[in-house]
Amino acid sequence: MVSTEEFIDNIIKGNISYLSRAITLIESTKEKDKIQAANLLQGCLSQTNDSIRIGITGVPGVGKSTFIEAFGSYLTSLGKKVAVLAIDPSSSLNKGSILGDKTRMENLSKDKNAFIRPSPAGNTLGGVAKKTKESIILCEAAGFDIILIETVGVGQSETLVNSMVDFFLLLKVAGTGDELQGIKRGIMEMADLIVINKADGDNVKNTELAKKEFERALHLNPIKENKWSPLVTTCSSIQNKGIENIWIIINEFLKLCKSNNWFQKNRINQNRNWLLQSLNQQLQDDFYNSKIVLQELNKQMINVEKQDITPSEASRILIELYRKEN
Amino acid sequence: MVSTEEFIDNIIKGNISYLSRAITLIESTKEKDKIQAANLLQGCLSQTNDSIRIGITGVPGVGKSTFIEAFGSYLTSLGKKVAVLAIDPSSSLNKGSILGDKTRMENLSKDKNAFIRPSPAGNTLGGVAKKTKESIILCEAAGFDIILIETVGVGQSETLVNSMVDFFLLLKVAGTGDELQGIKRGIMEMADLIVINKADGDNVKNTELAKKEFERALHLNPIKENKWSPLVTTCSSIQNKGIENIWIIINEFLKLCKSNNWFQKNRINQNRNWLLQSLNQQLQDDFYNSKIVLQELNKQMINVEKQDITPSEASRILIELYRKEN
Repeated sequence: MVSTEEFIDNIIKGNISYLSRAITLIESTKEKDKIQAANLLQGCLSQTNDSIRIGITGVPGVGKSTFIEAFGSYLTSLGKKVAVLAIDPSSSLNKGSILGDKTRMENLSKDKNAFIRPSPAGNTLGGVAKKTKESIILCEAAGFDIILIETVGVGQSETLVNSMVDFFLLLKVAGTGDELQGIKRGIMEMADLIVINKADGDNVKNTELAKKEFERALHLNPIKENKWSPLVTTCSSIQNKGIENIWIIINEFLKLCKSNNWFQKNRINQNRNWLLQSLNQQLQDDFYNSKIVLQELNKQMINVEKQDITPSEASRILIELYRKEN
Repeated sequence: MVSTEEFIDNIIKGNISYLSRAITLIESTKEKDKIQAANLLQGCLSQTNDSIRIGITGVPGVGKSTFIEAFGSYLTSLGKKVAVLAIDPSSSLNKGSILGDKTRMENLSKDKNAFIRPSPAGNTLGGVAKKTKESIILCEAAGFDIILIETVGVGQSETLVNSMVDFFLLLKVAGTGDELQGIKRGIMEMADLIVINKADGDNVKNTELAKKEFERALHLNPIKENKWSPLVTTCSSIQNKGIENIWIIINEFLKLCKSNNWFQKNRINQNRNWLLQSLNQQLQDDFYNSKIVLQELNKQMINVEKQDITPSEASRILIELYRKEN
């Protein structure tokens, strides 16, 4: 067994193998591992550098892997250390489809300045996100400057990603007709930058049209708290076009949001919310996993459905049973 | 003291005075009252008729009161019994601004087939919403056919309203330039009908333009689960124009959603969610109001802000302290 000190010492030295094992440790659900994981995180906390956390979301088919391959490789070429983490809302079903296959990012996965880590499988989306937040801390302790957090833009996972990043990048692709159709409004509001990928070949013209359409749509959004006006840009990940420009935009964002103090405030707020979320999650886990609630909840649910009992009364009964047992 | 049987008997007879006192009872935070309230609700549950629950939201200035006055009076003229309830997210601060003054709806408040009830003041938005849900049950037991649930469209209250209604009506007003500017995307997605109010005098032309703009914007929304295509219409509440048409649209909606079974399914889902929300709310209330958490939470929050401790570790410590004490 690796001691906590050995973990911390080696992570701080940037040892990827230890980092990887440390993430496995924090993902563990064994009680013994949880205690060591807590100590490990605590030890790594003081080591966090001034990294940048970038959320990247997009529905399947927009080319997230090729984009991260191109963007990540560009960043390492600048001498940056880049970690790629993923939040996969479906991971508990299919054992981590997003980054399950490192070959999706062939060059980046061989790059010694890059670290790619699939999302842990978890029972709750909140649980997955918690591990991702903790993974960010470990990666930062290991000296990674830029943390890319990837998610599939299909559910609530974007909100979770948004709760842990400094910059939110929405990846889109043109050529599907009405580009805005079907896009969740909340995601548009979160985006600091919309990147329309696959601006190559026959698709260049469509991409420019889509860019204009998104710019119009962004204009309708209320002003963001960080005072940043979200932008739309295009890129071709396979031709490596427009990648540098994205990095320029992110730096403009950082300049603004560090000078108006939003960057620092946002991180503090995220930590405060993380604490509250952890508390609420733990309270619920304890309750819903208790023997008595596992026995009785479904029964009360059926009573509520049949309108035999008010939801408030069913709730009162369940809480009372839980208190008696615990 | 009024007995539970006396309450139930008189509510079922449609006695407004008892209904009003019953709502006051369910709003009470006294333990003794809570028990009676639970029994009362339980007794009224079997009496619920096939009412329609309509959410009405709009920012201050769109003319919610005049609209509800006109729409409610139209409905009572059809022989319907109409109850108006409100969820006011700011009610704990200003003691219920929304419906604090019944004179806002002068005719409706004198109408014997109408019942207007301001939102209770509450510490949490969830708490306010819970009482509103319970008030709906009481109003339905008292024979009200149509329950209008009003809220100010400025925060999370719309989501709560949406979690308890069959039909969601968004009230807007034209003539402010870019009508879509500043509108929360989530609200647009929830709306079954957008009504542009104040279509009178100089404002008629602007209203027609706004109607077109909203229709374009609605077109961008994903298809709703209930298969209903949200509509945009205009009305003048002070001139009583377009009011009847709104009722026609709502009936078309009901016809569709009852035939495709969404109406029934939605009510069941709302009840299931209500149970889960009640449970989670109660777990949190117990925790955050416990002596030890009141003492220690702020301390840990500061530690988290100073990055002396990870949020996960702070959470673990607080939960452990709470368990020891309770």
